[in-house]
Amino acid sequence: MAPPENIPVATYLFKRLHELGVRGVHGGDFNLTALDLLPDAGLYWVGNCNELNSAYAADGYARIKGISALITTFGVGELSALAGVAGSFSEHVPVVHIVGIPNTISQRNGLLLHHTLGNGDYTVFQNMSRNISVTSTILNDPHRAASEIDRVLSTCWARARPVYIGLPTDIVLKEIPATHLNTPLDLNLPENEPETESEVVNEIARLIYNSKNTIILADACAIRHRVLDELHELVEKTHLPSFVSPMGKGAVNEELKAYGGVYVGDVSRDEVRQHVDHAELILYVGGLQSDFNSGGFTYRIAKKNTVEFHSDHMKIRYSEFPGIQMQPVLRKLLDKLDYSKIQRHPIPDISNTIPSSVQESDSQEINHAWLWPRVGQWLREGDVVITETGTSNFGILETRFPKDVTAISQVLWGSIGYSVGALQGAALACKEKYPERRVILFVGDGSLQLTVQEISTMIRHGLKPIIPLTKRHRYTIERIIHGMKATYNDIQPWNHIGLLNVFGADSSNAKSYQCESKTALENLLKDEKFSSAPYIQLVEIFMPWQDAPRALIKVGEVAAKLNSGT
Amino acid sequence: MAPPENIPVATYLFKRLHELGVRGVHGGDFNLTALDLLPDAGLYWVGNCNELNSAYAADGYARIKGISALITTFGVGELSALAGVAGSFSEHVPVVHIVGIPNTISQRNGLLLHHTLGNGDYTVFQNMSRNISVTSTILNDPHRAASEIDRVLSTCWARARPVYIGLPTDIVLKEIPATHLNTPLDLNLPENEPETESEVVNEIARLIYNSKNTIILADACAIRHRVLDELHELVEKTHLPSFVSPMGKGAVNEELKAYGGVYVGDVSRDEVRQHVDHAELILYVGGLQSDFNSGGFTYRIAKKNTVEFHSDHMKIRYSEFPGIQMQPVLRKLLDKLDYSKIQRHPIPDISNTIPSSVQESDSQEINHAWLWPRVGQWLREGDVVITETGTSNFGILETRFPKDVTAISQVLWGSIGYSVGALQGAALACKEKYPERRVILFVGDGSLQLTVQEISTMIRHGLKPIIPLTKRHRYTIERIIHGMKATYNDIQPWNHIGLLNVFGADSSNAKSYQCESKTALENLLKDEKFSSAPYIQLVEIFMPWQDAPRALIKVGEVAAKLNSGT
Repeated sequence: MAPPENIPVATYLFKRLHELGVRGVHGGDFNLTALDLLPDAGLYWVGNCNELNSAYAADGYARIKGISALITTFGVGELSALAGVAGSFSEHVPVVHIVGIPNTISQRNGLLLHHTLGNGDYTVFQNMSRNISVTSTILNDPHRAASEIDRVLSTCWARARPVYIGLPTDIVLKEIPATHLNTPLDLNLPENEPETESEVVNEIARLIYNSKNTIILADACAIRHRVLDELHELVEKTHLPSFVSPMGKGAVNEELKAYGGVYVGDVSRDEVRQHVDHAELILYVGGLQSDFNSGGFTYRIAKKNTVEFHSDHMKIRYSEFPGIQMQPVLRKLLDKLDYSKIQRHPIPDISNTIPSSVQESDSQEINHAWLWPRVGQWLREGDVVITETGTSNFGILETRFPKDVTAISQVLWGSIGYSVGALQGAALACKEKYPERRVILFVGDGSLQLTVQEISTMIRHGLKPIIPLTKRHRYTIERIIHGMKATYNDIQPWNHIGLLNVFGADSSNAKSYQCESKTALENLLKDEKFSSAPYIQLVEIFMPWQDAPRALIKVGEVAAKLNSGT
Repeated sequence: MAPPENIPVATYLFKRLHELGVRGVHGGDFNLTALDLLPDAGLYWVGNCNELNSAYAADGYARIKGISALITTFGVGELSALAGVAGSFSEHVPVVHIVGIPNTISQRNGLLLHHTLGNGDYTVFQNMSRNISVTSTILNDPHRAASEIDRVLSTCWARARPVYIGLPTDIVLKEIPATHLNTPLDLNLPENEPETESEVVNEIARLIYNSKNTIILADACAIRHRVLDELHELVEKTHLPSFVSPMGKGAVNEELKAYGGVYVGDVSRDEVRQHVDHAELILYVGGLQSDFNSGGFTYRIAKKNTVEFHSDHMKIRYSEFPGIQMQPVLRKLLDKLDYSKIQRHPIPDISNTIPSSVQESDSQEINHAWLWPRVGQWLREGDVVITETGTSNFGILETRFPKDVTAISQVLWGSIGYSVGALQGAALACKEKYPERRVILFVGDGSLQLTVQEISTMIRHGLKPIIPLTKRHRYTIERIIHGMKATYNDIQPWNHIGLLNVFGADSSNAKSYQCESKTALENLLKDEKFSSAPYIQLVEIFMPWQDAPRALIKVGEVAAKLNSGT
């Protein structure tokens, strides 16, 4: 049977998303007619509990599968999702935000429809989203729909940030030629200007040969702008000491001897900080120096010692090279380097060793100094490890990962509650493409309250995450920064043991645990059934409330200083 | 002891909020230093589970107490609240949105702080909020802080819509003179131009005397722009047949003989529609003709028969009077009218009578035709009745209220999940000021999922709402409009019976019920302890999923037509 010559605009859009690898489409409200067309394109509807959660979920899904789609309704729906989409913008995650908007006739007439501000202005929400999208379009004209969809989706992929597509209800079913689909979307990067690129590559090679102590520092944009293959090859071939920032965690294979730990400026472990600060040459790949990612702007790496690799420019010491993209530079550098000419320094020993004072303590209290190395021992190759903004984002810095672990967190945007939504998206993405990967979320009881209902969506889709929930009845991070005793940092204590059941799970497809001692948690971590992640599992871990990870305490000091403006 | 000469900027702001009647301050994240100062001003922190919920709650609180305050953090917090604040803008509810923003030095230097978009632009979020605020300010300059705060708060009150105040962390504690507080905020309306106003009043009186069949139609802005005293007096003194729109529900004392029912254009009960459509003169107070509020734009009231009363202008038949505000016009009309000259028509009989076919049916199924009149019989004077966007918003149109019932819903903005947040705010407002008033929320199990965690906040504050939860495991309204069988309209079924316990309540301060039959619900409604609202109560009401209120079915037909653009 010949393929149909014409297809609805929405089907065209959905087939393009399918081509990009999207299967589950997130969203918390309903675009109605358009959703009927998802199955024709091989997609399905996730159906989150609300729009903000769905935006967080789309972000998590994109971090596993490379891109994601989010459908919300006009006004109420899209605005509810904004904080999530803004996070994807801030953190360089490509999310296609599709908004079902009123029909073109209502738009022209300025009717006082529900979900509007009551002023007949139908452009206001798109304008608000312009601030958090790299490009946007309203598909008012079916004749231009295919080219607009292609343009916007390619931009989303290339720039690894959200885009906005407004889909009027009366355009959804308008038929357009399907033939455009025969030409795949062009996702290739444009070529670098060859002469400049060659100069850049030669100069970097020269710097490397001349340096007695070169290191690699991998950061967020190495992951988001898709140079992990090149980065892995660079580390493996050069054996150069390789460090990661908090946002770059997972970008380097931490099982390699070359892995040197997490660099966070003054917040780093001493031996890491000293090694990085004293390096003669730093190959800094995908840098993003935000406050928490840089230990409160305490990086001490000097311009004269640094080569910066960015998605749209390069910097070599004091020179900038606009438009020269890191991916082809890295590829050519790999081809060009004479690896025998590279000199190396010995690197810090980073392992998941529990400090002996903690290990030998008689206390059964589960504290951070014990927890995070112990978690590192328990993690497996390929795990997806999600940490919430707050305590666990800092605790995880003390964990050395096995190979191929993907770390998901929001160090720059830092939206509390993000991780629970992101867990749903990441776990769904793994279910689709990597069913063998475990997905693990570390979250505190305070943060869980913001987005808790997304656990219901996980149960609905048969996802099997492991959720270690640290309980202290306190917002620890806020207490460290300010208000150790203030009651506004208290939260309503919940009885989490009943949570999975309330959300519709039963003992056949879910299990909850309470660990109040090291022994209890040890036994659980050693339990093969638990560790095999057969269904959704919630683990309450009770910890002393005034305890915090080493890095958080240091960062807290810096944040308080920044807040006060001194 | 003499009052202090100087106080911190934040204290000044909080004392002004106290003057306006605010006590509980909503918010879902933390502004830290500023929150320490709340008690000094007689305020306290509510601490919602997330920011969107806190914005809904602030809206509900403002609808009881006249105004409310909401504090969120920069970027993540404020964007999460946007959809809620936009609802307050759309529905004319005065909410003061205070955002804790980075210190003035970081702003100037464009530092890459967490909660930013990573582009050093600190104005983007304020700009997004400009679309949904009547005015905004950033308190960067302590010398202008007091006058800016006064200007913005007065505008919020006068225009009954949200305002935005950015409070940099390093300004919070800056000292300013307290003496400004000796002059109360000026909340008086400016006077109408006397000659025009007099002409308007005379003309309305003349039209009333000449009409054989005058009616009053009360809509949303009669409530929001505070003319209920004048409106009540008008109805009581003229005995004119008085109708309300869905958004005007509660604006007229429905116990009066003059009350004629709910007018929703073609969606009205037949006898109501006929009475309104055939009126010779319509005094239309606070009109807001949105789609759902007007039965899909099916009002048939002709310009030549209508006098429109608005907060900032008047319309008499074909003439407009910009700047002439309804409140003083109504006041003067009340003084001027010769009530003996007014002619009236008999009005429809609206009562909470259950249709005899339903009453006499043997079926124990709880259906809408039975439920809403029965609820009307059970309601008490002074109740606050909140209905969720969806089924209950339409069901409540079939209920005749006792005196002084306040109805809360979002007919124009229509954000699903709004009502649960609004319940927290409204119940807290009643606890503060009207502890004898019961607060009742009608919500479906689908809508509850969006904002369910706010029930935890209610428990935390010892609030005592009654929550009848209609259960069908379906989003009824979406099914009616589109997709009666589509699986994307299914939701994950929850076990609500464990919900209050999970959120930290126990049997001493909470109770849950399951009503699967009319008899069970009858018995509950007759139970004096239940009806006395001694603690938070959740009532699961099982209803056949394909059943819907009369008005919803009609509105659904209209909405589907609008969506398709035909």
